[in-house]
Amino acid sequence: MIKVAIGIDVGGTNTVIGFVNNNGEILKEGSIKTSGHALFENYTSRISEKINELLADDFELIGIGIGAPNGNIHTGCIEHAPNLAWKGILPIVEHLQTTFDTKAKLTNDANAAALGEMLFGKAKDKKDFVVITLGTGLGSGIVSNGELVYGHDGMAGEIGHTTVFYDGRTCGCGRKGCLETYASATGIRTTVLEMLENSDKKSALREVPMASLESKHIYEAAIKNDEIALEAFEYTGRILGRKLADTVAHTSPEVFYFFGGLALAGDLIMLPTQRYFEEHLLKNYKGKIKMELSGLLSKNAAILGAAALIWNEDN
Amino acid sequence: MIKVAIGIDVGGTNTVIGFVNNNGEILKEGSIKTSGHALFENYTSRISEKINELLADDFELIGIGIGAPNGNIHTGCIEHAPNLAWKGILPIVEHLQTTFDTKAKLTNDANAAALGEMLFGKAKDKKDFVVITLGTGLGSGIVSNGELVYGHDGMAGEIGHTTVFYDGRTCGCGRKGCLETYASATGIRTTVLEMLENSDKKSALREVPMASLESKHIYEAAIKNDEIALEAFEYTGRILGRKLADTVAHTSPEVFYFFGGLALAGDLIMLPTQRYFEEHLLKNYKGKIKMELSGLLSKNAAILGAAALIWNEDN
Repeated sequence: MIKVAIGIDVGGTNTVIGFVNNNGEILKEGSIKTSGHALFENYTSRISEKINELLADDFELIGIGIGAPNGNIHTGCIEHAPNLAWKGILPIVEHLQTTFDTKAKLTNDANAAALGEMLFGKAKDKKDFVVITLGTGLGSGIVSNGELVYGHDGMAGEIGHTTVFYDGRTCGCGRKGCLETYASATGIRTTVLEMLENSDKKSALREVPMASLESKHIYEAAIKNDEIALEAFEYTGRILGRKLADTVAHTSPEVFYFFGGLALAGDLIMLPTQRYFEEHLLKNYKGKIKMELSGLLSKNAAILGAAALIWNEDN
Repeated sequence: MIKVAIGIDVGGTNTVIGFVNNNGEILKEGSIKTSGHALFENYTSRISEKINELLADDFELIGIGIGAPNGNIHTGCIEHAPNLAWKGILPIVEHLQTTFDTKAKLTNDANAAALGEMLFGKAKDKKDFVVITLGTGLGSGIVSNGELVYGHDGMAGEIGHTTVFYDGRTCGCGRKGCLETYASATGIRTTVLEMLENSDKKSALREVPMASLESKHIYEAAIKNDEIALEAFEYTGRILGRKLADTVAHTSPEVFYFFGGLALAGDLIMLPTQRYFEEHLLKNYKGKIKMELSGLLSKNAAILGAAALIWNEDN
């Protein structure tokens, strides 16, 4: 029998389910749509069906870890997630524990990613670091003194919802000017749309139908030196870099690890972020803090992170 | 013999030295001027003289804790403190250890205050809280999972140097728009001076010579309903409250404890801070996080905090 932990990554669009051994290898993987289920119960039943479909005879299930937006480690519920269709408090841990008679643990998807980085990625010897996920939104997981910072209510690490402009872009959370409305795949898309509207500059991005414009189009235009695309990366890096200087003033990490769709743009996003970050740091911190791409960037970090919630417990 | 730890609070103006027993009682106390010493060595020699002057025959010295701006727990040095006359790296721990042949520990003054709150104040059963000191500057100490967050380089907890306005007031740290240039005794003084200059409103504060205007004058005017003074507290609370919502998005504390000269203004500063804080919180955190005055407000929290660095080690 092979001991496996299930890692579940609840994304806005898809939910990915993987079976992970203690070396951080994903032995089996599948996915379902997150959206399109009228009730949350329909969705959790679909997850269970998928797990049963994937479960091999030689797997010994040691637990289920779930990474989800606004996942609360203490309550086991997804709470008021702005990017999901179901509102309120969603008891996902209870459902999976009952169905599979095993332990289940839930946290913020970015917190899970930070655990994944610590167990299976670049942060194996690190005590103080921050993981930033640049996807549909901006997620973050903070590790201090070698432990994930869950906070009193289990919901710490929401750097994407720190405020950049108090009268800025409307966020899915209902407030204005949150960092993630600028620094995320969605954010850079909005930036490009604003730039296209407010300038007459030539840009290949004007040829992409607005409804289908994605951050990958912006990346593709940028590597061909499209001026608007390059400016959008510069702007995004400026907002992100200087705001992360505030994070340093809180927990003084050794490294920031980046992943998510937008991080795949590599230097295009990392160089301006790093430059503005360094420029805005308090003198004591200057030149001391690294920014790197996640060690799990080419792997399914979200799955590994969710599974790390279980593997982290000395199994 | 009575076991005592010395707590030293290095302030911009005065340095206070206290002898503290394990119940958090200050048995003896004295102070010297921080400023007016050409060399840092002159200053540390003066501290040692004062300690020898105060040391009673029945004291058994178990160690010396120091709280100082930009105090680094790892290096034992005060590093680039903007509010002190001496620049660069100042090795205070080494001097005291050698002189008194005992252990010495240094940290940020606000980190010390947080330890003091945990050992001797209101936070005895708290695992996740933040202490904010509103004095000449704005200091902060963050406790997560029951431990002080020192960060990788030992200099975490500088919320006073998160940025409110990127083109805002010039800060002692050399950057612009730091929170402490608005939310501190110095900050509210600047706010009042700006308000007096930019309006024709009557105010008792116009009678105070500009050079001698202090936050206590603003407090005294505010309790007599002086419009400018009240507006200044409202403005300060707005800047502080909404910025602390960013802190919640990082570490999700259970309580913020406030102390320092400006916190003594009580409701005048606390009510607007709390109102804007609550208004700007992410939905998940709303209504969950307390803001209170420190349990050590009437005591010398800085001394107790510095001594707590030593008492914290199971003596």
